[in-house]
Amino acid sequence: MSDPFFHPVSGFDLPRFAGVPTFMRLPHVDLDHPRLSEVQIGLIGVPWDSGTTNRPGPRHGPRQLRDASTMIRAQNGATGVRPFERVNCADLGDVPPNPADLLDSMERITGFYNRVMAAGITPLTAGGDHLSSLPILRALAKNAPLGMIHFDSHTDLFHSYFNGTKYTHGTPFRRAVEEGLLDPKRVIQIGIRGTTYDMEDRDFAASVGIRIVPIEEFFARGVEDVMREAREIVGTEATYVSYDIDFVDPAFAPGTGTPEVGGPTAFQALQVARLLGGVNIIGADLVEVSPPFDASGNTAFLGMSILFEMLCVMSTPREG
Amino acid sequence: MSDPFFHPVSGFDLPRFAGVPTFMRLPHVDLDHPRLSEVQIGLIGVPWDSGTTNRPGPRHGPRQLRDASTMIRAQNGATGVRPFERVNCADLGDVPPNPADLLDSMERITGFYNRVMAAGITPLTAGGDHLSSLPILRALAKNAPLGMIHFDSHTDLFHSYFNGTKYTHGTPFRRAVEEGLLDPKRVIQIGIRGTTYDMEDRDFAASVGIRIVPIEEFFARGVEDVMREAREIVGTEATYVSYDIDFVDPAFAPGTGTPEVGGPTAFQALQVARLLGGVNIIGADLVEVSPPFDASGNTAFLGMSILFEMLCVMSTPREG
Amino acid sequence: MSDPFFHPVSGFDLPRFAGVPTFMRLPHVDLDHPRLSEVQIGLIGVPWDSGTTNRPGPRHGPRQLRDASTMIRAQNGATGVRPFERVNCADLGDVPPNPADLLDSMERITGFYNRVMAAGITPLTAGGDHLSSLPILRALAKNAPLGMIHFDSHTDLFHSYFNGTKYTHGTPFRRAVEEGLLDPKRVIQIGIRGTTYDMEDRDFAASVGIRIVPIEEFFARGVEDVMREAREIVGTEATYVSYDIDFVDPAFAPGTGTPEVGGPTAFQALQVARLLGGVNIIGADLVEVSPPFDASGNTAFLGMSILFEMLCVMSTPREG
Amino acid sequence: MSDPFFHPVSGFDLPRFAGVPTFMRLPHVDLDHPRLSEVQIGLIGVPWDSGTTNRPGPRHGPRQLRDASTMIRAQNGATGVRPFERVNCADLGDVPPNPADLLDSMERITGFYNRVMAAGITPLTAGGDHLSSLPILRALAKNAPLGMIHFDSHTDLFHSYFNGTKYTHGTPFRRAVEEGLLDPKRVIQIGIRGTTYDMEDRDFAASVGIRIVPIEEFFARGVEDVMREAREIVGTEATYVSYDIDFVDPAFAPGTGTPEVGGPTAFQALQVARLLGGVNIIGADLVEVSPPFDASGNTAFLGMSILFEMLCVMSTPREG
Amino acid sequence: MSDPFFHPVSGFDLPRFAGVPTFMRLPHVDLDHPRLSEVQIGLIGVPWDSGTTNRPGPRHGPRQLRDASTMIRAQNGATGVRPFERVNCADLGDVPPNPADLLDSMERITGFYNRVMAAGITPLTAGGDHLSSLPILRALAKNAPLGMIHFDSHTDLFHSYFNGTKYTHGTPFRRAVEEGLLDPKRVIQIGIRGTTYDMEDRDFAASVGIRIVPIEEFFARGVEDVMREAREIVGTEATYVSYDIDFVDPAFAPGTGTPEVGGPTAFQALQVARLLGGVNIIGADLVEVSPPFDASGNTAFLGMSILFEMLCVMSTPREG
Amino acid sequence: MSDPFFHPVSGFDLPRFAGVPTFMRLPHVDLDHPRLSEVQIGLIGVPWDSGTTNRPGPRHGPRQLRDASTMIRAQNGATGVRPFERVNCADLGDVPPNPADLLDSMERITGFYNRVMAAGITPLTAGGDHLSSLPILRALAKNAPLGMIHFDSHTDLFHSYFNGTKYTHGTPFRRAVEEGLLDPKRVIQIGIRGTTYDMEDRDFAASVGIRIVPIEEFFARGVEDVMREAREIVGTEATYVSYDIDFVDPAFAPGTGTPEVGGPTAFQALQVARLLGGVNIIGADLVEVSPPFDASGNTAFLGMSILFEMLCVMSTPREG
Repeated sequence: MSDPFFHPVSGFDLPRFAGVPTFMRLPHVDLDHPRLSEVQIGLIGVPWDSGTTNRPGPRHGPRQLRDASTMIRAQNGATGVRPFERVNCADLGDVPPNPADLLDSMERITGFYNRVMAAGITPLTAGGDHLSSLPILRALAKNAPLGMIHFDSHTDLFHSYFNGTKYTHGTPFRRAVEEGLLDPKRVIQIGIRGTTYDMEDRDFAASVGIRIVPIEEFFARGVEDVMREAREIVGTEATYVSYDIDFVDPAFAPGTGTPEVGGPTAFQALQVARLLGGVNIIGADLVEVSPPFDASGNTAFLGMSILFEMLCVMSTPREG
Repeated sequence: MSDPFFHPVSGFDLPRFAGVPTFMRLPHVDLDHPRLSEVQIGLIGVPWDSGTTNRPGPRHGPRQLRDASTMIRAQNGATGVRPFERVNCADLGDVPPNPADLLDSMERITGFYNRVMAAGITPLTAGGDHLSSLPILRALAKNAPLGMIHFDSHTDLFHSYFNGTKYTHGTPFRRAVEEGLLDPKRVIQIGIRGTTYDMEDRDFAASVGIRIVPIEEFFARGVEDVMREAREIVGTEATYVSYDIDFVDPAFAPGTGTPEVGGPTAFQALQVARLLGGVNIIGADLVEVSPPFDASGNTAFLGMSILFEMLCVMSTPREG
Repeated sequence: MSDPFFHPVSGFDLPRFAGVPTFMRLPHVDLDHPRLSEVQIGLIGVPWDSGTTNRPGPRHGPRQLRDASTMIRAQNGATGVRPFERVNCADLGDVPPNPADLLDSMERITGFYNRVMAAGITPLTAGGDHLSSLPILRALAKNAPLGMIHFDSHTDLFHSYFNGTKYTHGTPFRRAVEEGLLDPKRVIQIGIRGTTYDMEDRDFAASVGIRIVPIEEFFARGVEDVMREAREIVGTEATYVSYDIDFVDPAFAPGTGTPEVGGPTAFQALQVARLLGGVNIIGADLVEVSPPFDASGNTAFLGMSILFEMLCVMSTPREG
Repeated sequence: MSDPFFHPVSGFDLPRFAGVPTFMRLPHVDLDHPRLSEVQIGLIGVPWDSGTTNRPGPRHGPRQLRDASTMIRAQNGATGVRPFERVNCADLGDVPPNPADLLDSMERITGFYNRVMAAGITPLTAGGDHLSSLPILRALAKNAPLGMIHFDSHTDLFHSYFNGTKYTHGTPFRRAVEEGLLDPKRVIQIGIRGTTYDMEDRDFAASVGIRIVPIEEFFARGVEDVMREAREIVGTEATYVSYDIDFVDPAFAPGTGTPEVGGPTAFQALQVARLLGGVNIIGADLVEVSPPFDASGNTAFLGMSILFEMLCVMSTPREG
Repeated sequence: MSDPFFHPVSGFDLPRFAGVPTFMRLPHVDLDHPRLSEVQIGLIGVPWDSGTTNRPGPRHGPRQLRDASTMIRAQNGATGVRPFERVNCADLGDVPPNPADLLDSMERITGFYNRVMAAGITPLTAGGDHLSSLPILRALAKNAPLGMIHFDSHTDLFHSYFNGTKYTHGTPFRRAVEEGLLDPKRVIQIGIRGTTYDMEDRDFAASVGIRIVPIEEFFARGVEDVMREAREIVGTEATYVSYDIDFVDPAFAPGTGTPEVGGPTAFQALQVARLLGGVNIIGADLVEVSPPFDASGNTAFLGMSILFEMLCVMSTPREG
Repeated sequence: MSDPFFHPVSGFDLPRFAGVPTFMRLPHVDLDHPRLSEVQIGLIGVPWDSGTTNRPGPRHGPRQLRDASTMIRAQNGATGVRPFERVNCADLGDVPPNPADLLDSMERITGFYNRVMAAGITPLTAGGDHLSSLPILRALAKNAPLGMIHFDSHTDLFHSYFNGTKYTHGTPFRRAVEEGLLDPKRVIQIGIRGTTYDMEDRDFAASVGIRIVPIEEFFARGVEDVMREAREIVGTEATYVSYDIDFVDPAFAPGTGTPEVGGPTAFQALQVARLLGGVNIIGADLVEVSPPFDASGNTAFLGMSILFEMLCVMSTPREG
């Protein structure tokens, strides 16, 4: 049973549109807070988008996600899980990026997550563009390569952009494999679609053993079957979950920078998160929410609902 | 065959963007109009949202729904029904609410519907937030409790909010059961989903016999099967239909105050309304359209299409 | 193998948000350009909406479609086709319409396409409202009536509007059949739905042998089955493809003037285009994108993705 | 003192967001209404934009202006005038245009206004694009050419567009002078600005004696001085007032099709209307409100405030 | 010199789009915080709009104002004042309203401000609709009636609405005078404009000695002269400042529920706040920011800039 | 007299919404074009925003500015200048930036402008964030420091951000002075306002002799007087003009990343550009248009109108 200090404010006490918006109305426990060590799952914002090669905006993601998150109530309607009663959750604040220096920002992110890991906290991240996952993985995969379940419309496995630039939101997992942060044989990418420059990313995936599930296969096989395979691929060892909001069809999630039409529905977007049950998740992220392209906040609300589903899974003890 | 006075203006005579916008381009017949008694189905606006606990706006619903309704043509493309030729339909105008006095507004609404019932008119309501249904039911269920088919993402069965407040858009059907306006054994709620505060609403439902179909069951069983059960539950006796636009996924209906992601498509939203055929509908509503959150009017157009489907069913003689 | 002159600019060389936006970043080859005769497939804009009876705006379609098209990369992710390497493609610019003279504009459009046909170019058109298809067909169907696969929520087969007006976006294919431009027995219309004025259009379709697939049938049978029938109906002879963006559900394509709720998803919208493989397409269009009703450009991006799918099919040699 | 039948609904009785939206909440008295002959000033919508050479949308103007007009209360705060108590005002509905036939629409408009004039009603028009003024003037200036005070950023005096097209929203007053509907020596155009094709319009103005006040002169001299000259130019004889919303700076009135930056403020926009006092106004219009470019309705609210100011002046007995 | 604990986070340390958004990036010090008694000026949100008679939304004001406030830097560019170094400022959080019970909410607000006053804190409020000012004044004017400088387009002095309702956002200052919270002879209302129901509010003002400066007089005399009079009227005794964002022209502040066209510019909006220097301000508010009508946040940013100007004045020692 | 090849397409030949959108409908002459050397004034896009410390988006500026620029006609309505007849103007395309490598992008920009200068072309730039001006100045100020007239709400003179980062959009002119690209005694900055971090930028300005005109002084003295001083400060020697769209009040130009309320009107924004007459302009830019924050394109239209005013001045022979 979690400590009441870590319980979110109820909408029956303070209407959901009121109050200083922390993630899911949890207490704001920054890295210098006296109760930091009691936190079990920490929600962290990475307000950064310097890796974006197309439309920018994810630097504003954490702010809008916090705002939308005050709509999240205490209990999962589908599964009945009440995560905030099971584990101590808190809003750890945002990593302070340097918007004008990409490499400095990457160091700042890794440094922040090093401290989180040192405190024994499992991080649940609200991005930020997808390059954010790389400096996070550098902190999380210190001991051994991780498995990864990756929801996205893009592989983000390209070698480089713009005549040799190696760090963009289209390359993080190429780097992560190269750096030994991911075990490619325990990586699955689900929902891939859209036009492509060439086959360079998929050739790399094939060469190292990354499993790609294109959207056509996803729709043909169905959510349950694909997720069963995903769980098998990552097995029982430590696994990262990276969820790009552009996995979802842009009708449901227009607020992103590089949308690809023809994706899953919001219902399926929640289902795949729920079906992570049993996976040994040592960290997860939801990235690429770009508020300037959806001022309504609906994309952020979907993103936050996905984060909540992941949190419910992460707060549930695994069997065996 | 209906009287030509009650036929809507055709888009071939006056383009659909032109003219004073009444509901479905029907004549405006207010409660003092000499031809009131000839009306069989009356469309009524309830521009009121004082029961809203989250984002307001449904007070603007009837205006935008009227505007969108001029896109509705004379014939149902799917079923071939031409409702305006079958029954005399009219726009009865709006109930005059008191935006700064919740209880006074409830009395005004009940009073308005008392007059509508006295004139022998079947009301088809464009809300307004969901609390609107309660004062309407007070006028409609004078003699005996009604059955209800309720489409929504929320049960609206909570006991109270904010330390004891009994009248909000989250409580109308708790009150309706308590007041004997609904027969809980003839009530079915379809599409329920999203996070919840606790199980207090569902425990109540279980205790009085209200049938809840969560969205997961809805998708698993399919529209036809769920609606077959719904028709069985309400049987042949008098039934109210209450349709909250947030039943539909917010990608299709973003203009609402408390959206829950992961709902049915617009096609399914129309299907469930069509499958009301045979139900003894003595009144129906479409509520929670909130124009400030969808200035495009697309949500209102969907809402009006649902109202038109319900009107087609209501204008069709039941068998036997 | 196509000439490098006709290859689009890569997003790795020039970011996709940069540069003068031609269709799919192809060279702008106007009708007086020295290399016109080398073009095999020409993308053409018809910035015109004088046939619109409801909400205007498709005159702005080509501009927004060009803008969105810079998001299209070189390769089809689903089929692997790289159309720009197979055939010489170019942006032929826009037909200059006369926004204040409907008949003059129709002559200008036919004149433009006459020149395109004379140059031996297969036209792929970005509209424009649906009346645009009529003057295009006048240029394409000079020798014999064409077959047509038509995706739409409306039949566009009405006789006339507003007391006798024969040229509107609701009548082009009635005229095309009357003028002998289409062989009605080789015409199929897919996705028809929404309310209707009356049955005049469908009665005409039945009388001349046009096949209509209502949306209910489309969903019941599935994409593959319907498209198999479509390919059978048009056979191996010359066929036009006309794709109204309002075929797609407005959640996915809000930027159009006469939306009808309850349509296919974006994924299905792409699927039907892919399943045109094997059809003898001598021209195609994507019409009714109306930017004022979707400033985000998401509708245009879907429209352009559909055009790209059609281009991929058109660039692929047919068997036999 | 006006008849209570013609008084608008008060916001104290029915909140301003409620009810069927007629112009200024006045009774809807169509041309066949039994009390038509009692109307003194009639508000009329012209939902038409076929003369638009640039961005379309004014066909939706009357609908949005009616919606915004329910914000207008009974009394002018600046002048104290209560127009609805002085004269019988009513909403006469919309002229039914033919969106696909420009010349037919012009005849329909003139026919409608002929009936209005025959009933002895002074028309106050909500457009529509600026070509609307021409068919209106044809009905109003039957006996003698009128004077005109014209607020606009464009002269609308061009000879023709697109290789000879004579009827567009850039030509109405060229035609009106040619047809003897306006006395050019009693015409003043105020607020002219922006880039121009050439000097053809201004050369014409100079040649026939139309007075043009460019925006630079307007700002330099001030509102009072310019309006004093305007009143002198039109004198005491019958005068038409034509007010294009693009007279106002687009920061205040973005919802128009051909904005020109650098115009007057909303306060000045109201002032010039107030300073029409004493002019012998036999008709007036407010045109070019284009809702697709300002879904918020703020432009329409300004437009309606201007119409109200003109109504106040028109309802006030002139001295002498 | 203020305590560093109370200094806002600098944009040089944490980019302005990052972090949990408190007002002006100040520490969140709720009423139970151990350092509450050190706060000198407390920013408070009142997320409540039950008094709104027209378009709702100000309940969302505090959230959006907090978000926009992270754009405020440490120093006033015009006056050089650095308020956060002069006095201890903090974000005291939001009053918890009851959205479905108007009278209960008023009591909650007064109760909250009683605690603020008891702690010796000067409150600076971000509304909320204008009815919020009444329960605040009940806490602030316990000992003697206050003077008030009131910026608004409406007097908010009406007796009642909707057949006798006494508490709406159009009546707070009528009530405040009746209850002895304001000394009407020390009250000035600046910027009044727009249409009115009748003269009931102005007759009341005249009868009790409230000074009204209509917008026409404001523009004619200029900002300095009007504000000189305002300072004279309130004198050196305790004064409340109430600033309705609809004082400003809706081109600059569209995000409000009852806009009136023809108001001051943003520059003038800041000037009047700066010219409060020397006034004995014991509390101030900025109300009626309605985010649903300006999702861009621009209105909120202007509102926050006004609050910052007032804070600068309030943090500056008065002479003598 | 310019060559007809360099004349823009007329809106009378091709409606302004039609055609591939180049800047002002000029021919697209890239740096490899055979007629490059004939160009006298070249419009160039810099689609880049890596220097942005706050809200991103200016990378999309050139695209939207091109789109808006098709509204620009051939003649300046205020001054009568017809620039395209005086000098050969062309769209030189966009500099290809590297969105993920700030320093590489700066080199690419300088390289591009080196080629432009080598071709003898005067560059007129559409940004891009304000850091763009630095690499441009590096190409333009090779021989001697330039004077500069700078319109902005910010000085952009800060030393560094985020713990030492020297290249951001808040630092370009600090660098330019340090690098000897600007002669600070011939630099004037007009319109400065808003809150500030501290006085570091202004202290630097004072120490090197840069003249700052705060907005309060600008309004007090008036446009003519300020611009007379500006012309005196830069004198007759080579001068750069840098125009940040956030100089203008955000009511007129909301589409920018770091707006400051309380600025000039659009009319004044044009006036200051016109009053550059006589200045020896060797290059100019208009920066910080951020389309994601104004999808309407109104900000871009104002930006383009300012660029047109500057073009008119630049195309006019200076006296003496």
